[in-house]
Amino acid sequence: MPESSYPKSLDDAIAFDAADPLSEARAAFSIPDNLTYLVGHSLGPVTHNALKALERAAQADWRNDLVGSWNTANWIDLPTLLGAPIAKLIGVNADEVVVCDSVSINLFKLVGAIARAYGSEARIIVEQCEFPTDQYILERLSEQMRLDFVRAPAQTGFENLQRGDIFVRSLVDYRTAEVADVVEMEALAAQAGAVVVWDLSHASGILNLQLADWGAKFAVGCTYKYLNGGPGAPAFIYVSADHVDELETPLAGWLGHAEPFGFSDHYVAAPGVTRFVAGTPPILSMTALKGALDVFDQLSLADIEAKVQRLGDMCLATFAALGLRSNSPPIGIRRGGHVSLIHTDGYAFSQALAKAGFKTDFRTPDTVRFGLCPLYLSYSDVWRAMQTLSAILESEIYLQPEYAVRAKVT
Amino acid sequence: MPESSYPKSLDDAIAFDAADPLSEARAAFSIPDNLTYLVGHSLGPVTHNALKALERAAQADWRNDLVGSWNTANWIDLPTLLGAPIAKLIGVNADEVVVCDSVSINLFKLVGAIARAYGSEARIIVEQCEFPTDQYILERLSEQMRLDFVRAPAQTGFENLQRGDIFVRSLVDYRTAEVADVVEMEALAAQAGAVVVWDLSHASGILNLQLADWGAKFAVGCTYKYLNGGPGAPAFIYVSADHVDELETPLAGWLGHAEPFGFSDHYVAAPGVTRFVAGTPPILSMTALKGALDVFDQLSLADIEAKVQRLGDMCLATFAALGLRSNSPPIGIRRGGHVSLIHTDGYAFSQALAKAGFKTDFRTPDTVRFGLCPLYLSYSDVWRAMQTLSAILESEIYLQPEYAVRAKVT
Repeated sequence: MPESSYPKSLDDAIAFDAADPLSEARAAFSIPDNLTYLVGHSLGPVTHNALKALERAAQADWRNDLVGSWNTANWIDLPTLLGAPIAKLIGVNADEVVVCDSVSINLFKLVGAIARAYGSEARIIVEQCEFPTDQYILERLSEQMRLDFVRAPAQTGFENLQRGDIFVRSLVDYRTAEVADVVEMEALAAQAGAVVVWDLSHASGILNLQLADWGAKFAVGCTYKYLNGGPGAPAFIYVSADHVDELETPLAGWLGHAEPFGFSDHYVAAPGVTRFVAGTPPILSMTALKGALDVFDQLSLADIEAKVQRLGDMCLATFAALGLRSNSPPIGIRRGGHVSLIHTDGYAFSQALAKAGFKTDFRTPDTVRFGLCPLYLSYSDVWRAMQTLSAILESEIYLQPEYAVRAKVT
Repeated sequence: MPESSYPKSLDDAIAFDAADPLSEARAAFSIPDNLTYLVGHSLGPVTHNALKALERAAQADWRNDLVGSWNTANWIDLPTLLGAPIAKLIGVNADEVVVCDSVSINLFKLVGAIARAYGSEARIIVEQCEFPTDQYILERLSEQMRLDFVRAPAQTGFENLQRGDIFVRSLVDYRTAEVADVVEMEALAAQAGAVVVWDLSHASGILNLQLADWGAKFAVGCTYKYLNGGPGAPAFIYVSADHVDELETPLAGWLGHAEPFGFSDHYVAAPGVTRFVAGTPPILSMTALKGALDVFDQLSLADIEAKVQRLGDMCLATFAALGLRSNSPPIGIRRGGHVSLIHTDGYAFSQALAKAGFKTDFRTPDTVRFGLCPLYLSYSDVWRAMQTLSAILESEIYLQPEYAVRAKVT
C-alpha cells in the first residue's frame, strides 16, 4: 500500500488501485461504459449474479416449476436464507436477521413490538432531520399506541434518555454521512434503561459493522443501496436472539406464524426473528437480492471501510482546494459511503457532472451527494470525478440554463 | 355457443372450445408442455409480457439507466399506474386503486385507517375460517388499537352488525369458492352504520366484479393468483374516492407523502388512495405485474366469469358421477375460480394427478382445489383432467405409498 493516507495525484490514485484488495470486485458488476456511477448510496448497480438469479427465478422457477417452486426453489425460506449473508455484513449471528417488506414497514413492526413489550412506559424518540420516513412512521405509530413521541433536535436524541425509551437512529446520516458512535449510544441507553433501534440503510455494506460486539440489539436496514439488491429490494430486520422471544410483531401475518400451512385460526409466532415476516414476500425482487449478495462472499469489511474513507478524503481535499463547502465528517474522521457538497448551485453541478459521465445525486435544497462504493469505483475513477468537478467550476458551464431543469424525482 | 349449459362429453368440450371468446388468451402465456395447470388460484403462470417487462426493468432500466429510472421508467408512479388496470377489473375508477406491499399489510393499513376515522366505536369483525392472515392481522390490530375484536362463526359475520363495526370478508372463500352477496351485505352494513372491507384475493380477475355499482367502498386484494403478477407480487388497495379523504394510514411511509422528495420532517398525506403507499415498492416484482396485466386489455369480465362457471360445473358433474364430495357451490350456482374436492385421500389424489400432468393443490386436512382459470385452460383441458381423476380412482393407484409423501409447503 502506498505511504500517504489517501491519493493526492493521479499517479497516487493509480498506485492505490494497483494495491487495492477489492480491485476484482468490479468484474462482478454490469455497469454501462463511460459512466462513473456515484449514486450507490441511493440505488446500487446490477451484478451479473443478480441478473442470473432473476432470470432463473423467472424462467426455471416461476415459468417451469410454477407453484411447486415454493418447495423446489425454496421460495418459502428466502426471508431467512437472505438474512444469513446480511447478518455477516452487520456482525451478528446468521439466524438473527430476516428479509421482508420495506424499511418503513420493518421499523413499524420492530418499534411497535418493542413498545408493546415495554407497555405504557415507552416513549418513542427520533431526531429532527432523521430520514423522513422514519419520522413519519414513528410519529403515527406513537399516536396509534398512545405513547409519547419526542422529535428531538438533531444530535440530541441520546441525551436525557429515560427508562422505557425507544430511540431510533440512523447509524449513518443520509445527508452528511456522519457515523454514530454505537458503543457510546448503547452504553448511554443501557444506563438509562432505554433501547436504541438502528437504521442501517446507509451503513450496511459500506462500513465494518460489528453490531453484536458493539452491544446493538435491534436494527432495520435497506438492501437496494450498498447491498445492490435492485430497485425497492426488500429490507431487513435484526433482533438479537436474547431479545426476540419477548417481541410480538404488530403486523401478525401468516408467514410469521409458527405453522403457516397449518391454517389455524389463531396466531402463534414463529421462533426467532422469522416472526417478523408478515405477508407473502415479492419473490422476484427477493431473488435478485440473493444473487447480488454473492459479491460480498470473498470481501473483507475492513478493506471496504478503509477504501471508502480514502475515497471520501480525496473528495474532501478537492472540495477544500476549490473553496467548496461540505457538511460531511472531515478528512481522517470516519464517515459512511458518500460525501456531500453544499452549494446553492448544487443541482446544476450534479447535472453538469452527469453530462460529463459522472452520475451523482441531489437532495433538496442544496446538497450534491457523491456515493463512493469501493466495490466498483477505483481511486482513479474518483480522481477523475474530482478533476471534472474542478473543470465544471472553472468553466462555469453549470450556469447554463439547461442544467436547472428538474426531474420529478431528484 | 352450444346449447347445453356446460360440456357433458369430449365432443361437447371441443364444441365449447371452438366457440370460446377467450380462446386467444392462451397464447399470451408461457406454460410448460404436457402440463395442465390447475393452481392459478394460488400462483398464476407467467405471460410473455410479464417476462418482457421484467427483462426490460432489469436490463434497460436498472442496468442501463440506474437510479435515473425513477424518472425515465416512471418507477415512482408504478403504484398508481398499476392501480388503473386493476380498477377496471374490479369495476371502480382508475384513480381509486393503488398497488403496494402485501395483502396482510394492506389490510392492516386500510382497517387501521377506517378504525381511526371511526374512533373508539369501532369493532373489528372477521369470521372463523376466514383466510388465516386476515384473522391474525385483524386480531392483533384490534389489540393494538384497543378495539373490540369479534371472531364470528362462519357465515354469520354480517348478522347483528352495529354502528361503527368494520367487517372484513373474503368475497370468494379460499376453500369452497363460495361467492359473497356483496349487494346484500353492503345493504345490511349500511343499515347498521357499519362498513365492509372486502378481500378480493380469490375474486379479482376471475369474476365480473362491479364493486362501485354494488356499493362496495373498501377492498384489498392479491395480484399473484388470477392476475398472474408473479410469486409474491405486490397487492392492491381500493378506497372509494368519496371516502378516501377521511382516512389516515397507520403506516405513514414517505411514498404516501404528498411531497416525498420535499424531505419535510412532517407527514402530509398524498391526495387520494396514493396515501396508502408506504415504503419503496419492490420494482422488479411491480414491473412483472405490469406486464402480466396486459392480457386483460381485450377480454370481457363477463366472458371470463361465464366460462369459469361452466368449467366448475363440469368438474362438479364428474365428482358427483364418481361419488366424490365437494364443498363448493353446486352446479348452476355462482362460484369463484376453483372447485374443491373433499376426501381423506385428497393429498394422494393431488399427487397422482400431478404425476399424470395435472397440477392441482391441496389444503390441509382434506381439500383438493382445482383452479380453473379460463384464460389458459380450455374446456377440453378440464375434461381431460376429470377423465384422469376418474382413472386414478378406478385404478386405486393413489393408494401407493409414494403419493403420501408431503412437501414443506402444501
